Amino acid sequence: MTKRTSTVSCDLTISLDGYAAGHNQSEQRPFGDDGGDGWGSELHAWYENKEENRAEIDRMTRAKAYIMGRNMFGPVRGEWDRPWTGWWGDNPPYHGPVFVLTHFPRDPQPMDGGTTFYFVTDGIESAFRQARAAAGDDGAISIHGGATTVNQYLAAGLITEIRLHYVPLTLGAGTRLFDGVPPLKLEQVSSRAATGVTHVTYRVLS
Amino acid sequence: MTKRTSTVSCDLTISLDGYAAGHNQSEQRPFGDDGGDGWGSELHAWYENKEENRAEIDRMTRAKAYIMGRNMFGPVRGEWDRPWTGWWGDNPPYHGPVFVLTHFPRDPQPMDGGTTFYFVTDGIESAFRQARAAAGDDGAISIHGGATTVNQYLAAGLITEIRLHYVPLTLGAGTRLFDGVPPLKLEQVSSRAATGVTHVTYRVLS
Repeated sequence: MTKRTSTVSCDLTISLDGYAAGHNQSEQRPFGDDGGDGWGSELHAWYENKEENRAEIDRMTRAKAYIMGRNMFGPVRGEWDRPWTGWWGDNPPYHGPVFVLTHFPRDPQPMDGGTTFYFVTDGIESAFRQARAAAGDDGAISIHGGATTVNQYLAAGLITEIRLHYVPLTLGAGTRLFDGVPPLKLEQVSSRAATGVTHVTYRVLS
Repeated sequence: MTKRTSTVSCDLTISLDGYAAGHNQSEQRPFGDDGGDGWGSELHAWYENKEENRAEIDRMTRAKAYIMGRNMFGPVRGEWDRPWTGWWGDNPPYHGPVFVLTHFPRDPQPMDGGTTFYFVTDGIESAFRQARAAAGDDGAISIHGGATTVNQYLAAGLITEIRLHYVPLTLGAGTRLFDGVPPLKLEQVSSRAATGVTHVTYRVLS
């Protein structure tokens, strides 16, 4: 019998120079500075092409538990001094537990449709243990972003599958995937072209 | 009648973190430091798979004129104080003029099969003018590498087509594509998966 290992994936849309978002994110600019030319929306334009990219979009929200950085959850910095329940409306697409990394405690935030945001203040390993407990031994975990959070989990050796969506632009600055991550050997599991995007999935070998 | 613009392409095999070669290249290690684990050959393993990658390999040497950096031409630094005629044997695959960027003058080096290496000491624009004169107005030019040379031509706005071969590893250090290049808008022209490599071609829009 082969040992079954549950997937711990990350899923990032990146520019050809490896950036997942710009600097200086805000509520008005959730993907950060774009030099005024709107690359934030360009970076994510392929999401709008829902029919052609159905498989990749659906796969993003098929985990049993999610972990995300505070910047991906929202633009609030410091204390939780204003209401904020994420970018995704009343019924987020996760339909399960989402562990948000933050330095500032907050009570769990239940949403419609089964999503609950839990706020984890004691580090990435703690968030991972809580996600694993919630997902069960066989349940997939998604390290949902952004790149800074993904890089921390890659460096910790906890990610087993990297899903990238390469879009045709370069940014020159921002939050870069693989920064600070020791060299990785990977296996290309799948690669598929769609309009204006190439979807590639890699298994982490070492 | 649409205006015909001849292609100025670059063609690079890169790691997922965007490196085309390591530091400290030498005759024994033409792709530079590999931390002793042989990624230099891993980076280029797909070349060995000639049947599956025939189209991409053939396309690399279909230009009318080529430009390459001195480090791509060979490991000799400083004056040309020892014989060196490239990495490719007596009959290189170019079969045409190859302009090598260097600070040290040297007479042209004719090879078998129609390849001649010309050594250009007065900069990238001069090399480009010479390549254009050799290729003719309709002839394709290949900015053949390495990444440092490609970055200079990208920054100068002279490249019209970027061909990348993404291989499943990260390096963490080395010569990085797009370093120092202002942000680019591109169009994904084609994208194709082969075993252990994804071939993607982009047109430079601005």
